[in-house]
Amino acid sequence: MTAMQPVTIHSRDNALLKDLRRLSQDSTAYRKQGRVWLEGDHLCSAALARGQRPAIAVFSESFWPLAPEEYAQAATKNVVIADALWQDISGLESPARMGFVLPLPAQQALDAQSPTVVLDRLQDAGNVGSILRSASAFGFAQIAALKGTAALWSPKVLRAGMGAHFALRLVEGLDVQDIDRLRVPLLATSSHQGDWLHRAQLPWPCGWIMGHEGQGVSPDLQRRASRHIRIVQPGGEESLNVGAAAAICLHASAAARA
Amino acid sequence: MTAMQPVTIHSRDNALLKDLRRLSQDSTAYRKQGRVWLEGDHLCSAALARGQRPAIAVFSESFWPLAPEEYAQAATKNVVIADALWQDISGLESPARMGFVLPLPAQQALDAQSPTVVLDRLQDAGNVGSILRSASAFGFAQIAALKGTAALWSPKVLRAGMGAHFALRLVEGLDVQDIDRLRVPLLATSSHQGDWLHRAQLPWPCGWIMGHEGQGVSPDLQRRASRHIRIVQPGGEESLNVGAAAAICLHASAAARA
Repeated sequence: MTAMQPVTIHSRDNALLKDLRRLSQDSTAYRKQGRVWLEGDHLCSAALARGQRPAIAVFSESFWPLAPEEYAQAATKNVVIADALWQDISGLESPARMGFVLPLPAQQALDAQSPTVVLDRLQDAGNVGSILRSASAFGFAQIAALKGTAALWSPKVLRAGMGAHFALRLVEGLDVQDIDRLRVPLLATSSHQGDWLHRAQLPWPCGWIMGHEGQGVSPDLQRRASRHIRIVQPGGEESLNVGAAAAICLHASAAARA
Repeated sequence: MTAMQPVTIHSRDNALLKDLRRLSQDSTAYRKQGRVWLEGDHLCSAALARGQRPAIAVFSESFWPLAPEEYAQAATKNVVIADALWQDISGLESPARMGFVLPLPAQQALDAQSPTVVLDRLQDAGNVGSILRSASAFGFAQIAALKGTAALWSPKVLRAGMGAHFALRLVEGLDVQDIDRLRVPLLATSSHQGDWLHRAQLPWPCGWIMGHEGQGVSPDLQRRASRHIRIVQPGGEESLNVGAAAAICLHASAAARA
């Protein structure tokens, strides 16, 4: 089987290139286009390993002759883009100049019983992606993102998630009241109150609430939590990075049932 | 006490502006200039809270009239930069357009007995900064960065570190053999061998080795480790983000002695 012969794009005005530019630069363009942009071989490889099938595989002109078969034969359509135009659609300094366009999975409804991570207005795409990756690793099945959280399918969150998107039920744009539909006990992280994580008996399944980078978990969500949990910090820092705090909490849940 | 009257810069060719441009855009320019660039009010505030005294405080022209006293009086020299020039020295979309220039602390020698985190060629500045922050929170006193690790005092690592730099002994540019000077037992993270972290009795003080994002801990360093430790992952991910893995391991050390 030979690779699909590619279409080559040399014009900045090409319609597909314009779409890719929006997908790569505008973090919410995927909602309008109904498709997402995965850049770089690591992420594309992770998507293939999870059974994803891209609609379009995109390569820079200089990378195309070197493209491994698994990428060149992954999609029903291959597109090659002149090197000078690649920077328009790239957020990476990646050695492998390639990416996949995937159809955006349909938004799923919140599942009441799933082990869940609730994201309360997290701003940083890298944090959100890292939390998705930890959630998947530690056996959580669902992400419930409140309005104000970084767009889950944005290129930056996809990159930091490294394929975790395709192993999780992702629900975004939620209001605080939507969280009431969850039937698992909710645990809120706190910097100053509650049980010490390393001594706590953790319920399973459960929902961990991770709060805004500056403000923490909102009072409305704190009231909905059945327990508050804090992380011992002998160094006396006032706060941990939320991606680090999430990793510690989600791992504790996995360790408790290992 | 009134704020220092500022010097205002309107020319792209100004010598200080050129220096700031290099400091903000070139991750190793601090070595040549002997000073570092801290951007944004959160980071500057964290530096002040840790007793740092900036050499120069820098403000955008529109932010200067709004600058809180604690920033306006922090340095012996205030500089105001025309808004149109600010993007030259900025890596942030920060609402508070300000920053500090600090003298680069003298490189310290490796301390043999300190609880240490060894960074083995970590590439990503965000990961490195997040690990510094976790190290400080969990009572580690020293970072030992091998050659090939992201420059510790680069603006991106400083931002992600959120002040942790000023609470740690930072030693960079090390060779593998330099690690032999450490007299604490070394623990290497591994994805496929060793003791489960959640069941392990962890020594204190100790040194945790965190490996390259793609390749993990190098064989040369693995041989120097007294133990290999792995993190339970019921979700079956092949690897965690290294910042997440570090947070989990360093927290486990803190919890073991809490």
